[in-house]
Amino acid sequence: MSSTKKYNWKGKLHEVIYEADTPAGKIFDVILLVFILASIVLVMLESINDIDAKYHNALYIGEWIVTILFSLEYVARIITVKKPKKYIFSFFGIIDFLSTIPMYLSFFIIGGQALVALRALRLLRIFRILKLARYLGASNQLAGAIKSSRAKISVFLFAVIIASIIFGTLMYLVEGEENGFTNIPKSVYWCIVTLTTVGFGDIAPQTPLGQFIATIIMIMGYGIIAVPTGIVSAEYTRSANKKDEENNGELEKTHLNSQTCQNCLSTNHKDEAEYCYTCGHNLHLD
Amino acid sequence: MSSTKKYNWKGKLHEVIYEADTPAGKIFDVILLVFILASIVLVMLESINDIDAKYHNALYIGEWIVTILFSLEYVARIITVKKPKKYIFSFFGIIDFLSTIPMYLSFFIIGGQALVALRALRLLRIFRILKLARYLGASNQLAGAIKSSRAKISVFLFAVIIASIIFGTLMYLVEGEENGFTNIPKSVYWCIVTLTTVGFGDIAPQTPLGQFIATIIMIMGYGIIAVPTGIVSAEYTRSANKKDEENNGELEKTHLNSQTCQNCLSTNHKDEAEYCYTCGHNLHLD
Amino acid sequence: MSSTKKYNWKGKLHEVIYEADTPAGKIFDVILLVFILASIVLVMLESINDIDAKYHNALYIGEWIVTILFSLEYVARIITVKKPKKYIFSFFGIIDFLSTIPMYLSFFIIGGQALVALRALRLLRIFRILKLARYLGASNQLAGAIKSSRAKISVFLFAVIIASIIFGTLMYLVEGEENGFTNIPKSVYWCIVTLTTVGFGDIAPQTPLGQFIATIIMIMGYGIIAVPTGIVSAEYTRSANKKDEENNGELEKTHLNSQTCQNCLSTNHKDEAEYCYTCGHNLHLD
Amino acid sequence: MSSTKKYNWKGKLHEVIYEADTPAGKIFDVILLVFILASIVLVMLESINDIDAKYHNALYIGEWIVTILFSLEYVARIITVKKPKKYIFSFFGIIDFLSTIPMYLSFFIIGGQALVALRALRLLRIFRILKLARYLGASNQLAGAIKSSRAKISVFLFAVIIASIIFGTLMYLVEGEENGFTNIPKSVYWCIVTLTTVGFGDIAPQTPLGQFIATIIMIMGYGIIAVPTGIVSAEYTRSANKKDEENNGELEKTHLNSQTCQNCLSTNHKDEAEYCYTCGHNLHLD
Repeated sequence: MSSTKKYNWKGKLHEVIYEADTPAGKIFDVILLVFILASIVLVMLESINDIDAKYHNALYIGEWIVTILFSLEYVARIITVKKPKKYIFSFFGIIDFLSTIPMYLSFFIIGGQALVALRALRLLRIFRILKLARYLGASNQLAGAIKSSRAKISVFLFAVIIASIIFGTLMYLVEGEENGFTNIPKSVYWCIVTLTTVGFGDIAPQTPLGQFIATIIMIMGYGIIAVPTGIVSAEYTRSANKKDEENNGELEKTHLNSQTCQNCLSTNHKDEAEYCYTCGHNLHLD
Repeated sequence: MSSTKKYNWKGKLHEVIYEADTPAGKIFDVILLVFILASIVLVMLESINDIDAKYHNALYIGEWIVTILFSLEYVARIITVKKPKKYIFSFFGIIDFLSTIPMYLSFFIIGGQALVALRALRLLRIFRILKLARYLGASNQLAGAIKSSRAKISVFLFAVIIASIIFGTLMYLVEGEENGFTNIPKSVYWCIVTLTTVGFGDIAPQTPLGQFIATIIMIMGYGIIAVPTGIVSAEYTRSANKKDEENNGELEKTHLNSQTCQNCLSTNHKDEAEYCYTCGHNLHLD
Repeated sequence: MSSTKKYNWKGKLHEVIYEADTPAGKIFDVILLVFILASIVLVMLESINDIDAKYHNALYIGEWIVTILFSLEYVARIITVKKPKKYIFSFFGIIDFLSTIPMYLSFFIIGGQALVALRALRLLRIFRILKLARYLGASNQLAGAIKSSRAKISVFLFAVIIASIIFGTLMYLVEGEENGFTNIPKSVYWCIVTLTTVGFGDIAPQTPLGQFIATIIMIMGYGIIAVPTGIVSAEYTRSANKKDEENNGELEKTHLNSQTCQNCLSTNHKDEAEYCYTCGHNLHLD
Repeated sequence: MSSTKKYNWKGKLHEVIYEADTPAGKIFDVILLVFILASIVLVMLESINDIDAKYHNALYIGEWIVTILFSLEYVARIITVKKPKKYIFSFFGIIDFLSTIPMYLSFFIIGGQALVALRALRLLRIFRILKLARYLGASNQLAGAIKSSRAKISVFLFAVIIASIIFGTLMYLVEGEENGFTNIPKSVYWCIVTLTTVGFGDIAPQTPLGQFIATIIMIMGYGIIAVPTGIVSAEYTRSANKKDEENNGELEKTHLNSQTCQNCLSTNHKDEAEYCYTCGHNLHLD
């Protein structure tokens, strides 16, 4: 019976950590998000010299508090899940691990701090707490539109890169090193800056011929900007129409909750679901 | 009877101030708009040192004239409305108040002048005087398209912010302080400048690796620009089609006037309306 | 009979000058376009100091040749048309006049040269010589899409201007004169540069708060860019669909020629037309 | 029989060089792509002074290895094809020739190196090796959408150029040489930089009037950006709809291979094809 009890304890912790439907689970997720945001703000503040000079110790301590809490959370996640390997090698498992280790790494190697940038990805958890199936639906639809226009966008990106290499080399030959086009990779970089209409202006053509070629590149870029927009727009209209035909808003009435199966970690279960739709594991009994 | 008379006087003033259908109301609104524009021009001229040095007194007097007229108008609006509280806490009530007080505030605190920027919002009144239900319809349709794509745009903006934090931190680590990426918030700022294809160029990557990452950010930004456009475009086509089906241009024939109910301040009454469609108050009798 | 003869001579000249269907008319139009292009190139070359210093006399003579030819053409156009007033006050009549006079004006006033920029508008004649009803159709369809989305684009532009005034004033207060935001009009100018994602970078926010506000402006601008695109795109799809339904490509088979009625100057007559569809004047007999 | 044997040997080499269906053909294409990429990287590295100074000899040898291999490949292609003229004057024939000769040219003339930029175009072969009829279909659809909106885009580009000339001349007159607008061609260049929202910022208006005109140009450019996007988007939606109606995905099931006819060089044969669909030549027997 003690085994069952222990199992129950794990089950409850699992519910708190992995779900946002119970009050405890909601509180846990809110606290977690606050700490994720705090950890990002901490890293940002550390990078500002004036602030780091004044409050170095406070920031250092804060960073350790966040690291210890993240470590505890990571361990708890592994313990309460039935198949820890599945969690560890899942997208969020890897992100959780990488956002926890930078401080430990800083003992051994310098630069391990680079991983802290990945903490921002943890913010994606916000979608779960908002429990907005609507938002997930929106992102699915977006992903769908992007996915079905993948082939076209690949062709397009390929064309952009080839054009950049050709025009970049041309500009290097026309403008030369004295006008900032010091080598071909830099020229290609300038070409992409121009094609995408970003236009930093740190490098700019000085010779009349260079400016003429730049004009062609810009007008081309202007036309090119229309292509991915047209593609996504058309695919999106299409998928929206299809969805309109298939169900007249019916699907939207099905409410999905933030439950995560303890066994296989699949999400988006229906509210009335008793068993996991992927592996058949009982969702509530544990 | 004097009460009725007074009431009538108030009613007439209400008609002049709040409506643009009578000749007097039209003249009032035109004069008001001229003064709003004049007040904005005044503030702009004051900010130009050369002009302020030369004509300081004239500008100061002009500012006071505008302030006094705005004060009178504000008081008149409160007096002639049946439920002053409703007006005071309405969108335009607050804007009217805030555009009136800066000069009074300047006696007590410096910086109160910041509120003058809000005067521009008063220009929105122009839609009423133009009496263009057509324009209002256009802005409603726009608002509708934006509203129904809100969820998708939120997901999108969230993705942009997370990407900016990750790439911003990365660029800070790659480029470092010596190339202008002095701290992470500034790097994130640069990243948003680049993703949105604004590209000021006050900060620009100098190292080859930094330029390579910048290239990825720009091409990503290029693809990302397609997403909100595609969304709005698709939603817009959809809502336009729906409207086409529902009414074949019939709704557009219904002419709405600029009448404002004296009781509840609701607008967009039909031309033939005798009573407010929201509260049942008689629109013309007062 | 001499009157008829003279009339015939005028009629023939009219056919040469105003139409591009006869070989003579075609040659006339090609020569005219060459001179228009030459006149634009002349003005450009004159503006380049090195070239002007070397070839000043040649350019001066060239400019006079162009001016005299344009004058002759202008007089011929007036003589051969039945209702000269109609031509003189038509769009092309005014453009023709303004592109002819700059050299004459240069005797009296300096700065009259500014009008030469309008010569570029004469290039629009190219559409007639290309005789591409297809292109005219394309530009009509474009104009139609823009026209039917006029109301929406007005609302949109109005919103952009109001936002620019508000944020421009805010940036002036936050950044101040020491960071390049020397006065409110300049701040508003910077705001529009940023909102439209042009981003020159001659002025850029330096304070953290200013950069934060700039971030908001940029992301807003990013969203805003989606709106006019979505509108035009939707209107365009709509009008294209409508056209598809109405005629299945049938209209495109009707061939329109470049004939201009000698009497009322209306264009786009059908190939088989004998009389002007606007005024009933005989198109070929004169 | 020796003639047949020789023919067979040529046929086999043809299969290896021109096709990617046999294992040998696949390996050949992968190796070729690696060398194309290597040749592009070589040219880029050569252009970087530091690297060229250190490894000049290695790069020079590498360049010669690539040139000799490209020469061998070019000769092999000519030998194994039945109608060499057709190959030599085909798009890829010319590209292959131009990417091979720069090193030979460098003996005679300086600047022949400019042709190396064209090597990037050889990368287009990647589509064949990926054997992705899907991608080819995608690029065809794109090309179709662009083709059918050609007339509209021409009108649009023409309008952009005329507007640039007019506003460019205006800005030259307003800003003058002291603010960087040294001559009209440069002003026109600046105008295109602004209209396309690139905005380098190497030239920027300094006078209030110039900044006001710039504002108009930018807002115009903002509206103009909507036009090509709207066109492509609408054409694309249209062609996608048409394709949806014609075949319900049936065409996509027909699998095309990378076979090239030895006789007429036509590609995209069906998997079950025995004879060339263009000239009737036997595809496999040789």
